[in-house]
Amino acid sequence: MEAASRIENLPFTLAELRRAYAEGVSPEAVVAEAFRRLEAAADPGILILETRDDALAAAAALGTPDGRPLWGIPFVVKDNIDVAGHPTTAACPDFAYAARDDALVVSRLKDAGAILIGKANLDQFATGLVGVRSPYPVPRNAIDPDLVPGGSSSGSAVAVARGIAAFSLGTDTAGSGRVPAALNNIVGLKPTLGALSSSGVVPACRTLDTISIFAMTVTEAFEIHGIAAGFDPRDAYSRPVPVRPLTAMHPGIRIGVPDEATLETFGDSAQAEHFRETLVRLRTAGASVTEIDFEPFYAVARMLYEGAWLAERVAAVGKRLVDAPETLHPTTRAVLEPGLTLTAVDAFEGLYRLKALARRCDELMEDVDLLCVPTIPTVVTLSEIAADPIGPNSRLGTYTNFVNLLDLCGIAVPTGLRSDGRPGSLTVLARKGEDHRAASAAMAIETGTLGATGWPRPATRPVAGAVEADEIAIAVCGAHMSGLPLNPELTSRGARFLKACRTAPDYSLHALAGGPPFRPGMVRKRGGGAAIEVEVWALPRAAFGDFMAGIPSPLAIGSLALDDGSLVKGFLCEPHGLEGARDITRFGGWRSYLRDRDKPQPTGARAHAV
Amino acid sequence: MEAASRIENLPFTLAELRRAYAEGVSPEAVVAEAFRRLEAAADPGILILETRDDALAAAAALGTPDGRPLWGIPFVVKDNIDVAGHPTTAACPDFAYAARDDALVVSRLKDAGAILIGKANLDQFATGLVGVRSPYPVPRNAIDPDLVPGGSSSGSAVAVARGIAAFSLGTDTAGSGRVPAALNNIVGLKPTLGALSSSGVVPACRTLDTISIFAMTVTEAFEIHGIAAGFDPRDAYSRPVPVRPLTAMHPGIRIGVPDEATLETFGDSAQAEHFRETLVRLRTAGASVTEIDFEPFYAVARMLYEGAWLAERVAAVGKRLVDAPETLHPTTRAVLEPGLTLTAVDAFEGLYRLKALARRCDELMEDVDLLCVPTIPTVVTLSEIAADPIGPNSRLGTYTNFVNLLDLCGIAVPTGLRSDGRPGSLTVLARKGEDHRAASAAMAIETGTLGATGWPRPATRPVAGAVEADEIAIAVCGAHMSGLPLNPELTSRGARFLKACRTAPDYSLHALAGGPPFRPGMVRKRGGGAAIEVEVWALPRAAFGDFMAGIPSPLAIGSLALDDGSLVKGFLCEPHGLEGARDITRFGGWRSYLRDRDKPQPTGARAHAV
Repeated sequence: MEAASRIENLPFTLAELRRAYAEGVSPEAVVAEAFRRLEAAADPGILILETRDDALAAAAALGTPDGRPLWGIPFVVKDNIDVAGHPTTAACPDFAYAARDDALVVSRLKDAGAILIGKANLDQFATGLVGVRSPYPVPRNAIDPDLVPGGSSSGSAVAVARGIAAFSLGTDTAGSGRVPAALNNIVGLKPTLGALSSSGVVPACRTLDTISIFAMTVTEAFEIHGIAAGFDPRDAYSRPVPVRPLTAMHPGIRIGVPDEATLETFGDSAQAEHFRETLVRLRTAGASVTEIDFEPFYAVARMLYEGAWLAERVAAVGKRLVDAPETLHPTTRAVLEPGLTLTAVDAFEGLYRLKALARRCDELMEDVDLLCVPTIPTVVTLSEIAADPIGPNSRLGTYTNFVNLLDLCGIAVPTGLRSDGRPGSLTVLARKGEDHRAASAAMAIETGTLGATGWPRPATRPVAGAVEADEIAIAVCGAHMSGLPLNPELTSRGARFLKACRTAPDYSLHALAGGPPFRPGMVRKRGGGAAIEVEVWALPRAAFGDFMAGIPSPLAIGSLALDDGSLVKGFLCEPHGLEGARDITRFGGWRSYLRDRDKPQPTGARAHAV
Repeated sequence: MEAASRIENLPFTLAELRRAYAEGVSPEAVVAEAFRRLEAAADPGILILETRDDALAAAAALGTPDGRPLWGIPFVVKDNIDVAGHPTTAACPDFAYAARDDALVVSRLKDAGAILIGKANLDQFATGLVGVRSPYPVPRNAIDPDLVPGGSSSGSAVAVARGIAAFSLGTDTAGSGRVPAALNNIVGLKPTLGALSSSGVVPACRTLDTISIFAMTVTEAFEIHGIAAGFDPRDAYSRPVPVRPLTAMHPGIRIGVPDEATLETFGDSAQAEHFRETLVRLRTAGASVTEIDFEPFYAVARMLYEGAWLAERVAAVGKRLVDAPETLHPTTRAVLEPGLTLTAVDAFEGLYRLKALARRCDELMEDVDLLCVPTIPTVVTLSEIAADPIGPNSRLGTYTNFVNLLDLCGIAVPTGLRSDGRPGSLTVLARKGEDHRAASAAMAIETGTLGATGWPRPATRPVAGAVEADEIAIAVCGAHMSGLPLNPELTSRGARFLKACRTAPDYSLHALAGGPPFRPGMVRKRGGGAAIEVEVWALPRAAFGDFMAGIPSPLAIGSLALDDGSLVKGFLCEPHGLEGARDITRFGGWRSYLRDRDKPQPTGARAHAV
């Protein structure tokens, strides 16, 4: 009884599940609890297919925890993604086919130990942002039964928001991985196009599709992303997109937001107010927020359903739209049919117009690192969408439809309740390949309890990861350190802070003649030196040449021995450059020297000298 | 009389014109000679418009040579490129409009001092590779009057081949900048898409169009390219593509060629034989030639006229095809009309198919740096094209149609006469942005007299340029020098040799303990040092981080003073690393040390010591 009650209260997050497994909870018990929660939700709209037997068998086969990152973690996938041995419906029963293989991303997650609980409902053929365009029962919004669940990845989002699955896969072409996250108070990560394989996924718009990830927190969504991502030579749209570690948001990071004139909330003042309040939190966390004209972004957004890309959806649905239109949801059919009359000339003229608008958007983004927008401009109720199946759906795409067309990546995060008690959500957008930057900034604003569960949000802190293969670690000992004048030489090149530490006790430090900027010079001298304070930063290798070009004589980059015995690249000084310099080794570091240089030094204060 | 005869024999190459101008020849005389040659050619098909008055006025306004790179150089442009104050016809008189501004590339060339002689004939709307699809007289092939002139940039190629202009602009979508080069024994440079602005150019297929350059030699074509290239924010398809200097072809460069089974010459054995013979020359020059299956490239090539991209040409021609088809050349009309029935679904399905084929081609190119192909599979005669206006045209695109679809760049060069006396031509292709690599390899095989003029081909040698903005100069003093074991650390990262020189006379050189690889260490010591032999290499900045990561302690990269007083980045050694090292300063350099270390040193042989 006690164990049963414990597991009923167990938050299905990666962190809590791992803790429970470490304490001896069995994967079978977790799977059983997942299905108990599903039943308790009394919502037949969430899953199109439950994979209970497979899940129990997989749980039983797991044995004891083996270190795999998703060992025993329950998840669901949207039913436009293949799972071997089960039908893929795309919420169109007549379309269903038996999948022979797992989609590549599904197999990566299973290989990492995750257990599939079921296949989730969606707006048919992933066409829609409301979640009601399905012949299956409509999933209930997990937070507020008056609201649409959001789509197209409706069931995937609700399953996570209700704590049935620890994470789920959606897909995202127009916003299907972000809008339902906003409406269900969870995180929706929309990766860079091509980062996650589309092998085994039913296309919506092949040039714009990606699998997306729902989870309770940014760190957990990003961890799943890192496991799911990988180049797939069999998917022509796959691209090699390295996944970089999360880090604390850079102070001074430049974030663009819609200006007053173009912030669009369709009269929802609670949404506008919530957006502005959350921006204050971004600023407090150190971001530099810039208002920009969003018209060109909206112009791109409109192209997705009002222009040539509709033909991609028609191509995905195939002859069904002509030969068997009655097998389609009436709204889906109504949305797609205009695509039949578009010509190839229309298609190319659409591409030209997108190219021109993208240039304009690039120019607007030139001076910012990220964009931040409301995930949705306003909420949509079930009665609104019943009265008008198309208009409110289109409005929901205001801040999402342009993202894939512009090859941006993004992450939608819960930002606490709005003044009317409805869930708030903002999305941070970044350039392709900079998923980690978007997620790092999103961590600064995610808040509130998890989904619809009432579980408290765990305090998270980005862990300084190791240096990545496409980075180079560099130890800085002077004006390049955090907060000092030359630090932007690192941050502006995408460097991330790894750690503060000391060198091996073999170095002397000198305040060089000249300046500003005032600089120290460090020289290794076996015996008789000291351990000097340094910071280690990870700089993208591709940016190193540029950084190097700015380093003046007598400074050089060589190998520095750290106090843990490791060697990293770092600043050194040629001995001939010490002419006129002051030996400041006894301060133990440049920062201490700047602070204490004018104070009288106590006798014997030679810090860390050996 | 003597001066007149001199100018009549003056080769219109950049090199010879500059020499003539230095000797006092006037630009007016050169312009007059250009028009004399045009008249002498007795070919009214070359130019659609002569700009004689403008040219003479421009020549008169030039004054005395002012160092501008194209001062007084006569050129022509294809008549689908705007020249202010003149009509642009695209070889469709009914389409003609008065251009208000020069196309951006034209204005860059004029700004550099070039003088426009006229606007050249073309296959109407740049649709065709034969040069006969024009309502104007067909230009005569400059080499062999039985052959088509090649197109679509027919007049531009013939004007250069006949020595009327020193260079010309064409455009290239399907091969229009390469095929007529092959048929007229000149060089045709097809830049990376987006490197040259398309502002002021009549589109053919907007996603695939580029201005191209005809000249007599690779170095001259590439010099024009460097002047013409530049990012244009007003052209949505413009991209920043840095132009790197030409260099000698790297020994060991890997060049892919069609294998025996897929080399396509339509039964023209002289062409196959000539291709194989020229490959022998590439191998002799040090290239490593690999045969690859060309089927996927041909499959891409076929998509250009048999698939969705036809709709781009329809979009470019506009309503004319429906409203006034009689204003089109009958063949052009016949080629374009099927594009009217293509749907937007066809267009996107074409994009999908291209993406899949491009992946396959990428895989085939994985282990090669460049491709080399016959520019055309076989020649086409006027009688053949009269009998069948479309088939022979399609065949001409065998080795050109896939290039822009795959975002490659390339250069077609004369490779001497085939066994039947007809002009031979090969094209070297490279990945986007690597125009300099294609051109550097092409220099190794260009041969024969210039165009139709009989002028001998000048001996050319790539000049070591200065370091480029996206490179970093690095001085190496040991095993990284040419021919020594670590030199591939530079060359494999795209570094190019700049010069051999000495340091300022302030350095000591030491043979470090350890190895192999055996390495020297250099330390600056003001006073008492020597001038040490170094090599300076230009390394792409983006590759520097990777290079740096491999540099072991106690070596470092700092600033080196050279004997000319300049500072460059270069190898230094931490003083603590000299433990166990041998002072070899007296050898004056690592290479001398390796050669002479076991010889007895004459007393006082301390080289270059101060």
